[in-house]
Amino acid sequence: MTVSMQGEAPDSGGMCPSRLVLEHVTSRWGVLVLIELLDRPHRFSELRRVISRFGRAVSEKMLTQTLQTLERDGLVHRDAKPVIPPRVDYSLTDLGREAAEQVRGLAGWARERMADVEKARRAYDEAREPTSRAS
Amino acid sequence: MTVSMQGEAPDSGGMCPSRLVLEHVTSRWGVLVLIELLDRPHRFSELRRVISRFGRAVSEKMLTQTLQTLERDGLVHRDAKPVIPPRVDYSLTDLGREAAEQVRGLAGWARERMADVEKARRAYDEAREPTSRAS
Repeated sequence: MTVSMQGEAPDSGGMCPSRLVLEHVTSRWGVLVLIELLDRPHRFSELRRVISRFGRAVSEKMLTQTLQTLERDGLVHRDAKPVIPPRVDYSLTDLGREAAEQVRGLAGWARERMADVEKARRAYDEAREPTSRAS
Repeated sequence: MTVSMQGEAPDSGGMCPSRLVLEHVTSRWGVLVLIELLDRPHRFSELRRVISRFGRAVSEKMLTQTLQTLERDGLVHRDAKPVIPPRVDYSLTDLGREAAEQVRGLAGWARERMADVEKARRAYDEAREPTSRAS
C-alpha cells in the first residue's frame, strides 16, 4: 500500500497535487516561457530563440515538453492555424497569466536584489578561501 | 570570444546574472526549503524529513547542495553551534525572507487553482484519447 514518493511520478502519485503544478510553473523553462508569453503570444521557434538569448539554450524537445505540460495544466493555449506552412502560436490563458505575473514578480525581485546577492557571494567565497583574498 | 550558454555554468558565464538567482529560488528543492524556513529555523535532518513528507524524497547530497547555494546567495543563514553532538540550524536571512514570501505566494496560488488545473487536464486528456472517454 506504500506509494513511492521518489522519482518522477507522471502525476500526483503520493505527492501533494498542487506541488506538481508549482514544479511546472517554477521549472527552468516553465519560468521563462511564462515570462515571455506575458508580453504577447509567440510562435514556437520565436519562443525558443528568445529564451535561449536570455541564458541557456533550450532544446526543441525540452521546449516542446514544457509547453505541453503547461498546456495540459491549462496555463498555455496552443493555437495551430490551418495555413501552409503550418503556424502554431502559444499564448497564456487567464490562469496562466495569474501564474506568469507572480513568476515575473519573482524575476523582478531577483534583478532588484542582485547587488545584495553578489555581495553575499563575495563574503561567502572570501570566508572559505582566505589565501586568495589578496589576489 | 563566444561564451557557451549551454549546460550548468557554475556562475553567470554568458547568462543574465539574476536569471541564475531566479533558478536557485525556483529550483525543485530551493522552493521547498524557502517555504519551510519561512515558518521557523530547521536543523538539517528535520528539514530533510519535512521536505520529503511533502512529496519527493530529497537526498542528503541534494539538500546539502541546495542549502549551500542559497547560503552563498545570502538567502539562508547557517548556524553551526559548538556543541556535542554538532548542531546546525538553518534560517532565512532578510533577503531570503523576501524571496520565500513570493515563493509561498506562488505555492498558495497553485493550491487555490488546483481545481481549475485538474479541469484543464481532464479536457486535455479527453481531447487526445477519444476512445477512452467512455470507459
